[in-house]
Amino acid sequence: MHKITEVDMEKNILEENERIAQENRDLFKSKGVRAFNILGAIGSGKTTLIEGLKEIISEKEVGAIAGDLTGKDDSRRFKKRGMSSVSINTGKDCHLDAHYVNHALEEEDLDLDTIDILFIENVGNLICPVDFPLGTEKDVVVISVTEGDDMIRKHPLIFSRSELTVLNKVDLAEPMDVDLEIIEEDYREVNPHGTLIKTNAKDREGIKEVAEFLELPS
Amino acid sequence: MHKITEVDMEKNILEENERIAQENRDLFKSKGVRAFNILGAIGSGKTTLIEGLKEIISEKEVGAIAGDLTGKDDSRRFKKRGMSSVSINTGKDCHLDAHYVNHALEEEDLDLDTIDILFIENVGNLICPVDFPLGTEKDVVVISVTEGDDMIRKHPLIFSRSELTVLNKVDLAEPMDVDLEIIEEDYREVNPHGTLIKTNAKDREGIKEVAEFLELPS
Repeated sequence: MHKITEVDMEKNILEENERIAQENRDLFKSKGVRAFNILGAIGSGKTTLIEGLKEIISEKEVGAIAGDLTGKDDSRRFKKRGMSSVSINTGKDCHLDAHYVNHALEEEDLDLDTIDILFIENVGNLICPVDFPLGTEKDVVVISVTEGDDMIRKHPLIFSRSELTVLNKVDLAEPMDVDLEIIEEDYREVNPHGTLIKTNAKDREGIKEVAEFLELPS
Repeated sequence: MHKITEVDMEKNILEENERIAQENRDLFKSKGVRAFNILGAIGSGKTTLIEGLKEIISEKEVGAIAGDLTGKDDSRRFKKRGMSSVSINTGKDCHLDAHYVNHALEEEDLDLDTIDILFIENVGNLICPVDFPLGTEKDVVVISVTEGDDMIRKHPLIFSRSELTVLNKVDLAEPMDVDLEIIEEDYREVNPHGTLIKTNAKDREGIKEVAEFLELPS
């Protein structure tokens, strides 16, 4: 019995999320904001990627929403780099949903009238965010070679549903004995039409290619 | 309105989990099995830690349950090392729960009458498993220095509720410019009575200390 209720419940939650995601989408469109959902495990390099992209699109107003269980570390990093930014602390939720983002968009610190590009850094997790679109233009998953060469095979859904996968910290592949070809083959299998870009975000390698794929102004 | 239903739902699910966790606990006790829940993000080194512990307790029968969204990679690795092992594929669930484990314990490949030590490798995730005790004797969280020095600060709950945290891949701290002291300070703050052991599981450094803390036979 309890399984049925759980499934119904989940259906309601997902439908409600889709409704609010559409609200967000409409709001972004009416304000001329291009929004991107940046996903990936803790430590994969999401924050550093956003910092690197901000440098390339320096002429435009960039905003960033930082999703985390707790704390404001990432939001502070974004502000230091000249982005307007707010934190969303989810407590125990392992993902952002459209509702969280909708609330963040109402905050004074994010002025959608002036922002051109908005990055939404999701909670560090490769599993939970899959079912919760936020109303963004594209989803980008960031993975680090330090997570081992089986992370795509073990999380096929998130990679198959995202337009772009950024394979970060490629400079560590050799010292850590990680085979990039295995990762690339797995990626082609789970997402034959997707794009994989290799980066070393810390040293800003590959960031320009990411910006070009997302058609960001430079 | 829907928030209230969600909370009620969650309460039911957690109570049901606790009931089955107690069943598992009773079963382990009656069969003389010591069970451990091994938690941590993807790529943190959970599987390698279990392999290392198995080498130390080679005289005893060791079983391993491998929790993953999909695939049987880890279970195969355990079998190669002489452990009896079954996989639990959770599909989209970001954690094991007591019910999954209860089912796995019924499988022929795990003979609780002969097994002395059972490792349960949870789904790679630092968030979701927190609320779902499995009925094990102790919880061990494995983190890798490659996840950055903010992972404890960002996930306080899982570290505060687990008896032991294994800080793995310490050999990579220097090349990756990660400050181990920050991690250790954060750990003492979220879990003043917990134990943190530094390891390099691949080269079997620190594994003996982990085995001693868990009072495993050697």
